[in-house]
Amino acid sequence: MSIHAVKREQANLAWDNSIPPVLTISSGSTVHFSCLDASNGQLNPTSTNASIAALKLELCDQVNGPVYVEGAAPGDTLQVDVLDVKTADWGWTALIPGFGLMTDEFPEPAIKIWDLTEQTVNSVGEVEKYAYLNKDRRIRVPLRPFAGEMGVARGERGAWSTIPPYVTGGNLDTKHLTKGATLYLPVEVDGALFAIGDGHAAQGDGEVCGTAIETPMEVTVRLTVRKDKPYTKTPHFRTVTPQTNAEEYYCTTGIDTDIREATRSAVRNMIAYLAAEHGLDQVEAYMLCSVAGDLKMHEVVDMPNYVIGMMIPKSVLGGI
Amino acid sequence: MSIHAVKREQANLAWDNSIPPVLTISSGSTVHFSCLDASNGQLNPTSTNASIAALKLELCDQVNGPVYVEGAAPGDTLQVDVLDVKTADWGWTALIPGFGLMTDEFPEPAIKIWDLTEQTVNSVGEVEKYAYLNKDRRIRVPLRPFAGEMGVARGERGAWSTIPPYVTGGNLDTKHLTKGATLYLPVEVDGALFAIGDGHAAQGDGEVCGTAIETPMEVTVRLTVRKDKPYTKTPHFRTVTPQTNAEEYYCTTGIDTDIREATRSAVRNMIAYLAAEHGLDQVEAYMLCSVAGDLKMHEVVDMPNYVIGMMIPKSVLGGI
Repeated sequence: MSIHAVKREQANLAWDNSIPPVLTISSGSTVHFSCLDASNGQLNPTSTNASIAALKLELCDQVNGPVYVEGAAPGDTLQVDVLDVKTADWGWTALIPGFGLMTDEFPEPAIKIWDLTEQTVNSVGEVEKYAYLNKDRRIRVPLRPFAGEMGVARGERGAWSTIPPYVTGGNLDTKHLTKGATLYLPVEVDGALFAIGDGHAAQGDGEVCGTAIETPMEVTVRLTVRKDKPYTKTPHFRTVTPQTNAEEYYCTTGIDTDIREATRSAVRNMIAYLAAEHGLDQVEAYMLCSVAGDLKMHEVVDMPNYVIGMMIPKSVLGGI
Repeated sequence: MSIHAVKREQANLAWDNSIPPVLTISSGSTVHFSCLDASNGQLNPTSTNASIAALKLELCDQVNGPVYVEGAAPGDTLQVDVLDVKTADWGWTALIPGFGLMTDEFPEPAIKIWDLTEQTVNSVGEVEKYAYLNKDRRIRVPLRPFAGEMGVARGERGAWSTIPPYVTGGNLDTKHLTKGATLYLPVEVDGALFAIGDGHAAQGDGEVCGTAIETPMEVTVRLTVRKDKPYTKTPHFRTVTPQTNAEEYYCTTGIDTDIREATRSAVRNMIAYLAAEHGLDQVEAYMLCSVAGDLKMHEVVDMPNYVIGMMIPKSVLGGI
């Protein structure tokens, strides 16, 4: 079976069902996408904090496509099998003013450029890639690449921003959608009009600082129309967690009557912990939460207070 | 070193710093607690839905203690090492009207009694305990016992309900606090006044239906005063995830401008999936979400929409 291709310049800045498809495929076909990073090429390995200050947000989060899948009709489900995701050899994480869970507490632009070429071979002979946040302290993040944006066009007319996710997918920014995962999206228009973008080399649940390890990406997916999953009203997915041995975590919690404030408290407390125990500055710590820390809702029923956790694997912290 | 003991009848229904301690110990001492289940003995293996309708909520969620730890003062941190947690041979999960994330959609009382005596030996020779939700379909939940309530007295005077958690802990209902975990609690009163209760044989992140697999519990903890963690403003913990091989999950998401509504949507969608694909009725499915499904905050920054996930391990669903 031939593999279709979508080029990096075949991208759009909106979910808009009036945009003509760049490709029409039969159900079950495989498509390879070449994607710029989410800055749409505005950033590169030499970018600085000033580059973030100058970043044009209206050019960010482009999605490649759309791809028309024959046979897809409103009410169907589009099955997206993630067959492969490859990062570039560099990535970036940034604090973008006005963006991120704690933007009021982190108002200044900041960027971290990551080297994504480091790798090791684990005990079962597998190559594991990672990137250092801080090499001296051996604080490093395992790479688990995925596409932050995968979605289909909305049924509602108009040009919808690619920044928020919708029930039709889009900027899901969900770390579990790595190679081997299968995503199910509810179809709202004929042909589904699938598009993809926003390469992430690694991210935690939450993406709290607003960016992951952002990177250009080569990604291959198989797109299949499913008529037998009518209960799919939002994105569903199957995923396999990476093979792990018993892994130790450090977790900070936030407890509040408001879930968002509880979430912010959990992150704030992790930043304080990372500063106190691991010598990170506030910006580094916030970025590390975004790329390697997982937000979990430990308890959402003991009213009026919620318990939200921010969990960081010990292995990320140099085993300290 | 001797082990101190707290009996099942040495329990209270409030966090109240005026309640006299049942025990005074030196820092670093080990204490064994015998605890009734969170119904305070109102339920037993023969209970029915009518027992839930008759349940006196004002008697529930008692905590055993308090224990005065010498040397603990406001501003310190109490380190709680969870040395052992043993369940009884039965447990219960209930839908209690007015309680739980989806109580408006599940208004009727319901109970499930679990047999906690099943076990198997895994590939590395470890005994693994589990309980069947549905034996015919081989839908089973691995047991990961922990205390839902662990806390210290609040600095504020008064009798504070044991239902909500506080920044001093209490009803944290956090599944990761199993044997081997270490919990850190901010101390607000002299002696810390630690108490514990609410035995859970298993629970997912979120405890969405409002109850876990509730069970009487024998629990042993070591209590140590820490003067060197002044950044601990909410509960923090260390934990080790159980050894797993690559584990497959099915995840439903909720996407909404409101985190709580996104969370409810994720759960609602999982209930629909479990009904459609695994033949569970709505009540069973909701309970399974509570005891074996994990709520994760996949994305909290792509405004205005949040992405919350409800993830269920495939192994729970009979490998289907």
